[in-house]
Amino acid sequence: MLSAGPVHDAVSDQAWLQAMLDAEAALARAQARLGLVTPAAAAAITEACRAARFDAAAISRDAAGAGNPVVPLVRMLRAQLPPDVARQAHAGATSQDIIDSAAMLVAHRATGPLRADLASAADLAASLAAAHRDTPMAGRTLLQQALPTTFGLVAAGWMTALDAAGARLARMRHGTPAAQLGGAVGTLAAFTEGRSGEDGIVLISAFADELGLNEPILPWHTDRGRIAELAGALAGAAGTIAKIAQDVVLLAQTEVGEVREGGGRGGSSSMPHKANPIAAISAAASAARAPGLAATLYAAMPHEHQRAAGAWHAEWLPLTDLLRATGSAAHWLRDCLGTLEIDTARMRANLDLTGGALLAERIAAALSPSVGKDAAHDLVADVIRGGGSPADDPRIAARLSRDEVAALLDPAAYLGSAGALVDRALSYHPKGDA
Amino acid sequence: MLSAGPVHDAVSDQAWLQAMLDAEAALARAQARLGLVTPAAAAAITEACRAARFDAAAISRDAAGAGNPVVPLVRMLRAQLPPDVARQAHAGATSQDIIDSAAMLVAHRATGPLRADLASAADLAASLAAAHRDTPMAGRTLLQQALPTTFGLVAAGWMTALDAAGARLARMRHGTPAAQLGGAVGTLAAFTEGRSGEDGIVLISAFADELGLNEPILPWHTDRGRIAELAGALAGAAGTIAKIAQDVVLLAQTEVGEVREGGGRGGSSSMPHKANPIAAISAAASAARAPGLAATLYAAMPHEHQRAAGAWHAEWLPLTDLLRATGSAAHWLRDCLGTLEIDTARMRANLDLTGGALLAERIAAALSPSVGKDAAHDLVADVIRGGGSPADDPRIAARLSRDEVAALLDPAAYLGSAGALVDRALSYHPKGDA
Amino acid sequence: MLSAGPVHDAVSDQAWLQAMLDAEAALARAQARLGLVTPAAAAAITEACRAARFDAAAISRDAAGAGNPVVPLVRMLRAQLPPDVARQAHAGATSQDIIDSAAMLVAHRATGPLRADLASAADLAASLAAAHRDTPMAGRTLLQQALPTTFGLVAAGWMTALDAAGARLARMRHGTPAAQLGGAVGTLAAFTEGRSGEDGIVLISAFADELGLNEPILPWHTDRGRIAELAGALAGAAGTIAKIAQDVVLLAQTEVGEVREGGGRGGSSSMPHKANPIAAISAAASAARAPGLAATLYAAMPHEHQRAAGAWHAEWLPLTDLLRATGSAAHWLRDCLGTLEIDTARMRANLDLTGGALLAERIAAALSPSVGKDAAHDLVADVIRGGGSPADDPRIAARLSRDEVAALLDPAAYLGSAGALVDRALSYHPKGDA
Amino acid sequence: MLSAGPVHDAVSDQAWLQAMLDAEAALARAQARLGLVTPAAAAAITEACRAARFDAAAISRDAAGAGNPVVPLVRMLRAQLPPDVARQAHAGATSQDIIDSAAMLVAHRATGPLRADLASAADLAASLAAAHRDTPMAGRTLLQQALPTTFGLVAAGWMTALDAAGARLARMRHGTPAAQLGGAVGTLAAFTEGRSGEDGIVLISAFADELGLNEPILPWHTDRGRIAELAGALAGAAGTIAKIAQDVVLLAQTEVGEVREGGGRGGSSSMPHKANPIAAISAAASAARAPGLAATLYAAMPHEHQRAAGAWHAEWLPLTDLLRATGSAAHWLRDCLGTLEIDTARMRANLDLTGGALLAERIAAALSPSVGKDAAHDLVADVIRGGGSPADDPRIAARLSRDEVAALLDPAAYLGSAGALVDRALSYHPKGDA
Repeated sequence: MLSAGPVHDAVSDQAWLQAMLDAEAALARAQARLGLVTPAAAAAITEACRAARFDAAAISRDAAGAGNPVVPLVRMLRAQLPPDVARQAHAGATSQDIIDSAAMLVAHRATGPLRADLASAADLAASLAAAHRDTPMAGRTLLQQALPTTFGLVAAGWMTALDAAGARLARMRHGTPAAQLGGAVGTLAAFTEGRSGEDGIVLISAFADELGLNEPILPWHTDRGRIAELAGALAGAAGTIAKIAQDVVLLAQTEVGEVREGGGRGGSSSMPHKANPIAAISAAASAARAPGLAATLYAAMPHEHQRAAGAWHAEWLPLTDLLRATGSAAHWLRDCLGTLEIDTARMRANLDLTGGALLAERIAAALSPSVGKDAAHDLVADVIRGGGSPADDPRIAARLSRDEVAALLDPAAYLGSAGALVDRALSYHPKGDA
Repeated sequence: MLSAGPVHDAVSDQAWLQAMLDAEAALARAQARLGLVTPAAAAAITEACRAARFDAAAISRDAAGAGNPVVPLVRMLRAQLPPDVARQAHAGATSQDIIDSAAMLVAHRATGPLRADLASAADLAASLAAAHRDTPMAGRTLLQQALPTTFGLVAAGWMTALDAAGARLARMRHGTPAAQLGGAVGTLAAFTEGRSGEDGIVLISAFADELGLNEPILPWHTDRGRIAELAGALAGAAGTIAKIAQDVVLLAQTEVGEVREGGGRGGSSSMPHKANPIAAISAAASAARAPGLAATLYAAMPHEHQRAAGAWHAEWLPLTDLLRATGSAAHWLRDCLGTLEIDTARMRANLDLTGGALLAERIAAALSPSVGKDAAHDLVADVIRGGGSPADDPRIAARLSRDEVAALLDPAAYLGSAGALVDRALSYHPKGDA
Repeated sequence: MLSAGPVHDAVSDQAWLQAMLDAEAALARAQARLGLVTPAAAAAITEACRAARFDAAAISRDAAGAGNPVVPLVRMLRAQLPPDVARQAHAGATSQDIIDSAAMLVAHRATGPLRADLASAADLAASLAAAHRDTPMAGRTLLQQALPTTFGLVAAGWMTALDAAGARLARMRHGTPAAQLGGAVGTLAAFTEGRSGEDGIVLISAFADELGLNEPILPWHTDRGRIAELAGALAGAAGTIAKIAQDVVLLAQTEVGEVREGGGRGGSSSMPHKANPIAAISAAASAARAPGLAATLYAAMPHEHQRAAGAWHAEWLPLTDLLRATGSAAHWLRDCLGTLEIDTARMRANLDLTGGALLAERIAAALSPSVGKDAAHDLVADVIRGGGSPADDPRIAARLSRDEVAALLDPAAYLGSAGALVDRALSYHPKGDA
Repeated sequence: MLSAGPVHDAVSDQAWLQAMLDAEAALARAQARLGLVTPAAAAAITEACRAARFDAAAISRDAAGAGNPVVPLVRMLRAQLPPDVARQAHAGATSQDIIDSAAMLVAHRATGPLRADLASAADLAASLAAAHRDTPMAGRTLLQQALPTTFGLVAAGWMTALDAAGARLARMRHGTPAAQLGGAVGTLAAFTEGRSGEDGIVLISAFADELGLNEPILPWHTDRGRIAELAGALAGAAGTIAKIAQDVVLLAQTEVGEVREGGGRGGSSSMPHKANPIAAISAAASAARAPGLAATLYAAMPHEHQRAAGAWHAEWLPLTDLLRATGSAAHWLRDCLGTLEIDTARMRANLDLTGGALLAERIAAALSPSVGKDAAHDLVADVIRGGGSPADDPRIAARLSRDEVAALLDPAAYLGSAGALVDRALSYHPKGDA
């Protein structure tokens, strides 16, 4: 139930099946370009490669005996074709050519909507940053109120982090996914029988072109750097999402109450008064699965020799799940930020909770020239710990007037570069389609 | 396709649904024992709690809006019951009471067949150990031949490790799974309105009894030690399986050839001569997912206050997946060991590959009294590195007769306690049902 | 700086060195029992095996060339002994015999004080539970106030979780650590040359006895179940600690303010008024490293053949670090709970923040008989969302008197089994030394 | 002992201390540029900021009480300065400004030599690829011999993977590390008291310039995307290294014997004949720690509000350890490849082990036109499984002449695009300094 949004479908069993079929069809067309397959056969194979024509459950079942799904897939594909065409389907290829290329297609197709959800969430954060550029709130460190900040700066921080995560994902998405073609051990020998070795390279290039994927320098069957790069970009995005979701959950606490998810969700089965930040919680829960899944993919990188005995097979589920988890997290976050209600009065009220303690740093700074930095720090700390207000302490009054103290304790007057930083951050936020 | 065996079904969506319904039914019956629910209502609720009557897809879909599947589940359950009975279903409970109890049921039900597969695999290893108690083979350290051992001792090591993993799982299985009942915040207040606090404890006890689960000291909604203990037992079992699967893969290498999976699987789509150890590979690949999943469960242990905002939700998929991965790994390993063919001639031939280098330690030991330990070590090392045979070296011949050297180089005469260890291990192997 | 407490020293380089030397000495004494080593040599070796006599830095440096520290260690040990004794040191052993046995010693020695810190923390939680058995506070789910609970029940939950983590660790500590002795490939051949195979088993038994460790069924050089069990118990304990530390941090928030770490720590470098819950934060930060370290140990379980080519070496640092991280976390938590100040007035004030919304469930329950469960739920939800008080709503007033409403909204009257559960939990808390 | 090479020192406690001092000095100089600090004070602070003048052990000890090392560091720094200068040191900064900036410096400094070791390893792989462009060896899939390849193509695959890992690291290294400056909650308020907000941005820019780090859009105290990106690049590099190290270990097996580490390391304490691939094993063992450490860093990304209560502190050790583990792995791999001895005769002999089975695909392909693809596959499989040679089978002889069969079974004639791929890969290999 935590899985939501467009990425969910983009990594479904059906999507994987279609991607494998797309790889088979692209291979036939690429081979046709070199005259290795007849144009008619390439067209017939392409025509046959529609997931709806295949029995996904049967493929999954038969895959167990063969060690991977391509063996039954090719059998079913050939069974749909006349013998002379059937012979030309999957000719020279190995299962890994198809599965790795399909994995790249799935990753490329899934990270599109994921990027879009991240960008939407960043746009929503940008709107919040602009609208609340000058809304004071308590800045909190170690979950203690520390100094004033603005909700605008908080939201700008969310936006900038989302933009950076999106940019990393976009960079990965454009540079990383590459076609995989090498045949049994990566030499392309079965493709280029009776041809020059250069033709193998031309074939890889044509195959990549047909798939709309990058052309690799070499077949990369046991170089899993691409999978790792994907894992890193996804886990990083998930962590960024989790941070924001956690902020929302913390700000929505009953005792803080500065934000609230709208949208009519989050009713409790037993507590009618509750309105839980369900979208933020779902985003956080989805994102929490990413670090372990990424670790599994990193740990599976050492592929033995020319095809791994297990490490390759161990990638498929975590990769799918990592795309789904991060995609769901992004979708939930967008949902959360899209309905987020901001309670500026509560932000202000919370700032006032500590009766000036929050700006003790400022009083200490004003006292420093006369009493020394450490002594000022100690004096103010002493007043605060005693529960008194700096305005009433005679030691302070001896050095600062009542008005000076009041001015020093005004949160809106101590926001430093918050506004300027919001402006700066917004100026870097990409407009329109990233 | 890597998911195989009985655990796969025991953790399916349908199995989870039934477990949640079992929890609802058990709760009604437990409440009936205390007179909180009428006997007739408890019977009607129990009757209604059959997964086949529910639309699992709809529950999954509606769960998103509510944050968990129990909200729509209870709605559908009540809709099937007359109003006076409906009112008594799920009365006083919170979603987490149902989901945590269901998780324990699922874990208990899934670890039964998992234990059985581990036990079968251990039995198969025991048979191999007994049959090959005295079959010499090369012992290998750092993937280099080191000294002779026996395949019996290797298989006994597999068996002992599987027995230990099974025993840990059994201990966890009997001691850990406990019913969860606490109501919204763990006080059971909604259950015991107008009753003594002691009645809440009686209710927990009755509920646990109805579920066939242990009775906890306290509601454990935010103490995830049970989940962690489950994760540890599963990840440990997976690692044990992976070690054995890896040994099989290594022993099955073309250049080693000491074992081979039978059973007619493992044909290659492009290489007709290959017979890959598919079961071992599938076991290893399944097991490789366990460490990351366990890490996710450990990392999700810090549940906030009386119910976590995300960390709880983050448990469900990894827990299910960890059961499935370990269950599949156990099933594949049993499959692998059940068809494993042992080539004792090849074991012997491999032992002879190094022409005596393997027992260089023994020659060195025999030379030590006369030339000193370090000098003996250096002398033998010098002979071996030179590619010569200890039998032909004049420095050795000066101290040991040809027959002495031959006897020292006989692998079957240098197996130390291997046979005794196999006997000892077999004597500890549990007979019959564990 | 996060590393604190007695476990830190128990896993130091010096502690590891002493443990390896203890293993060498125990081996010599065990061999002496069988007449394989002279009593005088065993005594001399034991006398020499003091870490202070060895150059730890040199061992560490020379270990790189040999792949492990035992090679230089044995060289230095022998250099301190007369030749006839030197020959008898480490005789027949392999490096892994020493390092695995040392790892078990280190683990056993480190988990003693770790257990003690966990027990102390549990005792402190028990005192809090007893003292605050009837102190009402807001129960919070999804970080929203839900229903009243007591701080006593919260603290009892901490105690029970710590007791369970400690019991798991104690069970592991007593059952798991076993001596390792097998020689190069686990056959003990070099130990029992010219003896019966049974003598190898007697030697293992004597070695285990000398070390004060359990006797294994077989040499376990490539069965890493023991390491996994240790990892699981530690990671589970760390997660339990992290939950409690997180609760403290959340309860100490400026806006919640229900607890506060005393002890005079936690001053901020720039904010004199802050008193951060440094001990809880340090506990949480230490514990956060455990899941990844445990995952590394699980992932390293597949040891190849009779000694792993890397997976064994990959264990040493994470195992040490996991002991240190969990030990530090336990020490910080004990520190935290030992100074924790409880603000019962603030607990009560927070309960009143919602003006009755918290007990809306109770009003809904009281209305259910007259209007039906769902309608009651909807009605109360409507009142709460409108910001009104149940006491003032005419629809409620029509069915419940003002006094009835007031009684229903009294948190102290709606604590269910909280008190009884605290009593029950305390009755299970182990007294004195565990 | 697994820690080796220049990265080890670049992440030492001393290196961290110097980096924190560099951040303090850079801050003073940046503040001097804006007139916030006197030029003389900036010079004096810079002069004082030398690690050798500080007591690292005392800082580490005192850090525990304060929650981080900057508090005691600043105290010691100020104690070395005249009062009017002391007041200007660390003025307006928060501990996280210093630690995060220092972390970026440490990362930048450590990844320099790490990059260099990766580049050297890639150069060594390039030399192997060029030297063995046409050296046939068995390609192995699932650890079974599959089809011929060349050692040149294998080494080219190593090189390309290392180049890609290095390029990712270089991209990260140039784009990611950014100065951190925000003061207590990220508003820079204490820096710009009485100044315009724009001055805070100018100060960040000056600080970044003084440090030689990138200028961030915003203070990034709770946006840990940079740490995640670093973690991903390191874990990916470690996985790439581990793959190559594992290939070496597998190729060095006694039964395979195609490569061997030279350099005189790897003697066994008990087996004089062994020469273990210690450098490859150490590389693999170091790299095996990376996935878990990266997972810890990803899991620590959700930093609460304006400074995390634990998640930040949890980063320090894993980040340091991940740099050290990956750095050591790179150094060991370079060491391994630098001494690797290639046994081309053994490669050829292993190819001949299967008596033609390896090229069964080729025979099947040649038979396909006459008997159909599936029948050809079945026929050849039948011959191979029967242990016969394709050359002698009458069913094959009926269709292919003895010479045709011999030509088909010549491995050197079935290397496809291997040579062309090596040439292509070498043409992409960066020359000279990357």
